[in-house]
Amino acid sequence: MTTVGVGMVGHAFMGRAHSQAWRSVGPFFGPPLTPVMAVLAGRSAERAGAAAAALGWATVETDWKELLRRDDVQLVDICTPGDSHAEIAVAALDAGKHVLCEKPLANSVAEAEAMAAAAERARARGVRSMVGFNYRRVPAVTLARKLVDEGRIGTVRHIRAQYLQDWLSDPEAPFTWRMDRDKAGSGALGDIGAHIIDTAQFITGQSLAGVSALLDTFVPERPVPGGGTARVTVDDAALFIGRTDAGALATFEATRFATGRKNSLRIEVSGSSGALAFDLESLNELWFHDAAEDPRTAGFRRIVVTEPVHPYAGHWWPPGHILGYEHTFTHQLADLLTAIADGADPRPSFADGLQVQRVLAAVADSAASGRWVDVEGSE
Amino acid sequence: MTTVGVGMVGHAFMGRAHSQAWRSVGPFFGPPLTPVMAVLAGRSAERAGAAAAALGWATVETDWKELLRRDDVQLVDICTPGDSHAEIAVAALDAGKHVLCEKPLANSVAEAEAMAAAAERARARGVRSMVGFNYRRVPAVTLARKLVDEGRIGTVRHIRAQYLQDWLSDPEAPFTWRMDRDKAGSGALGDIGAHIIDTAQFITGQSLAGVSALLDTFVPERPVPGGGTARVTVDDAALFIGRTDAGALATFEATRFATGRKNSLRIEVSGSSGALAFDLESLNELWFHDAAEDPRTAGFRRIVVTEPVHPYAGHWWPPGHILGYEHTFTHQLADLLTAIADGADPRPSFADGLQVQRVLAAVADSAASGRWVDVEGSE
Amino acid sequence: MTTVGVGMVGHAFMGRAHSQAWRSVGPFFGPPLTPVMAVLAGRSAERAGAAAAALGWATVETDWKELLRRDDVQLVDICTPGDSHAEIAVAALDAGKHVLCEKPLANSVAEAEAMAAAAERARARGVRSMVGFNYRRVPAVTLARKLVDEGRIGTVRHIRAQYLQDWLSDPEAPFTWRMDRDKAGSGALGDIGAHIIDTAQFITGQSLAGVSALLDTFVPERPVPGGGTARVTVDDAALFIGRTDAGALATFEATRFATGRKNSLRIEVSGSSGALAFDLESLNELWFHDAAEDPRTAGFRRIVVTEPVHPYAGHWWPPGHILGYEHTFTHQLADLLTAIADGADPRPSFADGLQVQRVLAAVADSAASGRWVDVEGSE
Amino acid sequence: MTTVGVGMVGHAFMGRAHSQAWRSVGPFFGPPLTPVMAVLAGRSAERAGAAAAALGWATVETDWKELLRRDDVQLVDICTPGDSHAEIAVAALDAGKHVLCEKPLANSVAEAEAMAAAAERARARGVRSMVGFNYRRVPAVTLARKLVDEGRIGTVRHIRAQYLQDWLSDPEAPFTWRMDRDKAGSGALGDIGAHIIDTAQFITGQSLAGVSALLDTFVPERPVPGGGTARVTVDDAALFIGRTDAGALATFEATRFATGRKNSLRIEVSGSSGALAFDLESLNELWFHDAAEDPRTAGFRRIVVTEPVHPYAGHWWPPGHILGYEHTFTHQLADLLTAIADGADPRPSFADGLQVQRVLAAVADSAASGRWVDVEGSE
Repeated sequence: MTTVGVGMVGHAFMGRAHSQAWRSVGPFFGPPLTPVMAVLAGRSAERAGAAAAALGWATVETDWKELLRRDDVQLVDICTPGDSHAEIAVAALDAGKHVLCEKPLANSVAEAEAMAAAAERARARGVRSMVGFNYRRVPAVTLARKLVDEGRIGTVRHIRAQYLQDWLSDPEAPFTWRMDRDKAGSGALGDIGAHIIDTAQFITGQSLAGVSALLDTFVPERPVPGGGTARVTVDDAALFIGRTDAGALATFEATRFATGRKNSLRIEVSGSSGALAFDLESLNELWFHDAAEDPRTAGFRRIVVTEPVHPYAGHWWPPGHILGYEHTFTHQLADLLTAIADGADPRPSFADGLQVQRVLAAVADSAASGRWVDVEGSE
Repeated sequence: MTTVGVGMVGHAFMGRAHSQAWRSVGPFFGPPLTPVMAVLAGRSAERAGAAAAALGWATVETDWKELLRRDDVQLVDICTPGDSHAEIAVAALDAGKHVLCEKPLANSVAEAEAMAAAAERARARGVRSMVGFNYRRVPAVTLARKLVDEGRIGTVRHIRAQYLQDWLSDPEAPFTWRMDRDKAGSGALGDIGAHIIDTAQFITGQSLAGVSALLDTFVPERPVPGGGTARVTVDDAALFIGRTDAGALATFEATRFATGRKNSLRIEVSGSSGALAFDLESLNELWFHDAAEDPRTAGFRRIVVTEPVHPYAGHWWPPGHILGYEHTFTHQLADLLTAIADGADPRPSFADGLQVQRVLAAVADSAASGRWVDVEGSE
Repeated sequence: MTTVGVGMVGHAFMGRAHSQAWRSVGPFFGPPLTPVMAVLAGRSAERAGAAAAALGWATVETDWKELLRRDDVQLVDICTPGDSHAEIAVAALDAGKHVLCEKPLANSVAEAEAMAAAAERARARGVRSMVGFNYRRVPAVTLARKLVDEGRIGTVRHIRAQYLQDWLSDPEAPFTWRMDRDKAGSGALGDIGAHIIDTAQFITGQSLAGVSALLDTFVPERPVPGGGTARVTVDDAALFIGRTDAGALATFEATRFATGRKNSLRIEVSGSSGALAFDLESLNELWFHDAAEDPRTAGFRRIVVTEPVHPYAGHWWPPGHILGYEHTFTHQLADLLTAIADGADPRPSFADGLQVQRVLAAVADSAASGRWVDVEGSE
Repeated sequence: MTTVGVGMVGHAFMGRAHSQAWRSVGPFFGPPLTPVMAVLAGRSAERAGAAAAALGWATVETDWKELLRRDDVQLVDICTPGDSHAEIAVAALDAGKHVLCEKPLANSVAEAEAMAAAAERARARGVRSMVGFNYRRVPAVTLARKLVDEGRIGTVRHIRAQYLQDWLSDPEAPFTWRMDRDKAGSGALGDIGAHIIDTAQFITGQSLAGVSALLDTFVPERPVPGGGTARVTVDDAALFIGRTDAGALATFEATRFATGRKNSLRIEVSGSSGALAFDLESLNELWFHDAAEDPRTAGFRRIVVTEPVHPYAGHWWPPGHILGYEHTFTHQLADLLTAIADGADPRPSFADGLQVQRVLAAVADSAASGRWVDVEGSE
């Protein structure tokens, strides 16, 4: 049994989600490489130690650089805020460690370019990298991609994508690092907007070529726990319309002010011969319309994506026994470990992450200028 | 019993819908003025005669101008394509006839301005006018307006509006006057985009102040029944984002290429203390989230808008017995006849129709220029 | 143009619904016989006169027997409570008038037998009769019947039928004739239970052969408007399980105490190779699962039953423009008038109504005895 | 840190689900007792060894009796078919081991009585027992129970419960032990019927007092993998109606022939002042209607049960990040471990399991006799 030693950096929300995936990927997927949860890095020895005990990591480091020196670490899993992604990822790749990096890849195009370059260098030496757009691995989303790829909806004409949350709808919700541009890069745009950009591009196999955008901050000042207030330096909501490189029309909205919507990532794709619809709040379902059907019995079908023939589903439970949010991370690791074992490049790559970063930059530029902006790198 | 003689111009889709409303408004609403279906105007005596017999009109004219001369006509109902609205409406108003005009008000801002001016002149003489944005009278939409007006969702922050149809999704669908700019003014934009603009503005009580837009024609050439093809000179789809005069963010999409969606007009409004959602394919339902509820039991409520306390519903059937598309036209007439009897101005007025026309123009300008465009008349 | 003179007896809820259908069937269906709304019969001249004026009936009679003597009446439409159905229908048929009788056919099996016998006698003379189970003419229900008939769901194995209302859920809801056994025959059982029995048998083409049942009255005493209380002598709720003549298992529930459900008639049918589901609160939708589909893309399809290829729908509006409750009555008349013109027997016949009455009787017997009861006439 | 050594018997579907829960309960719930996955018992050393390696169990035994002798085992988790539950559970309890036993508790009332007696004996010595009706720990179901308990829906009047699967709909689906009465006790009735009986009784706090039932076997002979056929000696479907000890009316259906329904456990409860609805295929949602609301805005609310204030949810992810089927087992263990640490009796107890067994027996008796049957122990 070949193993791969894993070092994880960060142990907040994403660290907990990744840990559950590292614990689960073996029992359910029996991957060709067995992960060993070797070390957890966190700045506070105390907090990292408690997290490691709770989450199942064998040892702790307080400086992530130590991970690069440890022989028992072959893979670095980056779960920190976006401002440290570039430094850690580039160093890890240059040190010959495989890297899984949470999304968005970076806080700027420049950082993302450096990371993609490092990934390309590392690749030549057989070192793999992947960015954690986990929603690609929702079985319904993976199935949607396959159906588009097989031509089941024909030529894609429309993408409508929304990521709706409401945790900032209350003006008294407290200030966190996610509202600080220096830490987070942007607000709803990079946090959840990046997810719908990646997921929509993944499903359609098309890339956004240009956009017109609006960003806004509804509540510019928020209370800081402990006293005082802080200025919100990121967007509360991001809206844009655009066109893909293949000529489809797209509309996107990412907001933290969609009152009553907790985590509703919705994507609908209309094609010349079919359509697909998805909502993350019902993540076990894919809606599919086949325009070739007899109009008498045609309609959107609610596919419960839990059959053995569905992506990933057969590794879990019998049909109809639904999966949750966290399973996407386990799927991600199953694919990552398989790619490493096979000497293949996992997707989404850092180049994919860079492309998303360029879309984010075009959105920000368009919102600032009030003009259509082409996405860098699109022809 | 006071009556009002009605002359209707046009007897296609809208003429059939209006006729059913003229027949039904008496039995169900018992309005203060009883309509008399006096005369139907259509260019072909034969076709108009057959339509009058089928739809319940007493007599026929082949020139709409005759309606203005007839003493038994006090109200002209305009159901023709948009290119003739201005001429008929201005003449009718100037002749002292009340006017109900189908939407969109006109094919251009200039025409709409002339019509609004005529309406203003007529108003001074007690002559009433109304534009037929019938979806304001879907009981769920009227209820949504009331809830916003009562402050039940607080400050409006987001509008997301879609009008999705798919009857042109097939490239072989035949050419009709609706694809001809000279007749129709625009495509999806004016036909169904106008509906979501009016409905969203009506529900929120806010007006669009500026927009960034995209228009596209996916299928530029279509077969003509009988042979040959014709050039499509209007948009197949219209997308825009915008900001209201009160600072809410809005996203709109109107398309005839949303495969599998037959007549799905969806509006969701997020406010600081609640939210509303509606879909015309389920027109008896309004979804309402009250953010003031205990979070343990909070959620979007499916209100079946068929109770006696709901707008219009008590005039029809017992609770839970649902209404259909055509009922909105009956509600429209009930309100129009009441306004005329009361000497009040019905809404939506021609001024409301003009404002929608200005939004349509701003959308077209923005799509052409790739820039943000302010809506004329917004401050 | 051949006409048929109509006399209607009763002008309450059902009278209003039937009147709207008599007004609408011409414009939308252009039936081979044009109905003339000749006379409305009601016991009070004043109330009947007001109703006739509002609903569009030309004249009024205060004794329904006069209708049988009038030459301008060829068809009698019975919209009275169930206790008078038998007398009126038998007399009308024997007088050579076609009869449309509201459901349930009668308040007892004996009455229903007499009516079915009268229908059989009349039939020999070319006089037609029909019982008003209008939900057979919901387009989605008619389509469901066709799909079963075509074998699209294979052998029927399960029927699950519910008719859920809540208008008696409040113990203070007032006493009406519907709670009086002498007038109404039974409570939820005959009023709404009869509907799901007929609709389920219609869709499946099978008949209930035996049942085990429970009836209950939750609130035995109710306030009488004006003062005092009255004893409720009918069931508030009726539950039964049963087996059809073809061996399918069935479960039925009819109740006026399903809090929050206003008019929810739900039927799901599971077959060996497919399934169907329907809810009257969303009456434009039929859900269809085809078990022959690739399991990867199989699922219940939401068919929006508004296409030209769908039953009845093409006579109304374009695709996606939904119909309401009342349209079912218009469809019923279109079929009735066509059958009369064609010299054919319309369905559901009085024999069909009698069979439903026998199921109702078996349910009552089983509830009283606590034993399985075979339905009379089943082999 | 106090630990509890766990020995699990069986490693098929339920063994995999329980193992994932044993691995997850620590990281997410930090229970007062930390479980140690000490030993897995299975008849085949080879298969048990492979399962133990995959699922995270430290050692293996091929005779479950060895578990009772091991000092490192304080808790026995029984995941075998129903025919061995009684022997293992009684022996384990008598040996002083806490017991978690999968549902249904046993294959007969006699066995269940013996088990409940053993549990009662053990309880006197501080030894705890629990039966694995895991759906009580779906957060939405637990919330439903709380709302009923708080009086939010008033007096319960109706229960409608369905457990719909379709894995036997195909006559060619192979024979397994679940179709063998000797192994499984019964078919749909004990397997999934037991779940809806327990869940409905749990939510309402009421017990079934009597029933009328139907059982059927649609496909009496099935292919055996490897060749030949075997006789199905259990029910394919079970339907019953009944009355609770508090006078509510109930309807239940459990079937493996509900074509297109994969794992749809639906429960709707109507009360005098509210109602609740749930579907396991959307297990993160609870629908709640509050009849005390203003009728203008009343309706079933879709509560997304993922808020920190909801049962169990706060231990997992942020709001809107949904849970899956397997999480219920983790919740079950968190409560079991807490109860053991607190010296309290966990629920559902073996007495609860016995009561469900008595309902199952009454259903079978009624189906056989065609008569109403009182549930043993109900007064």
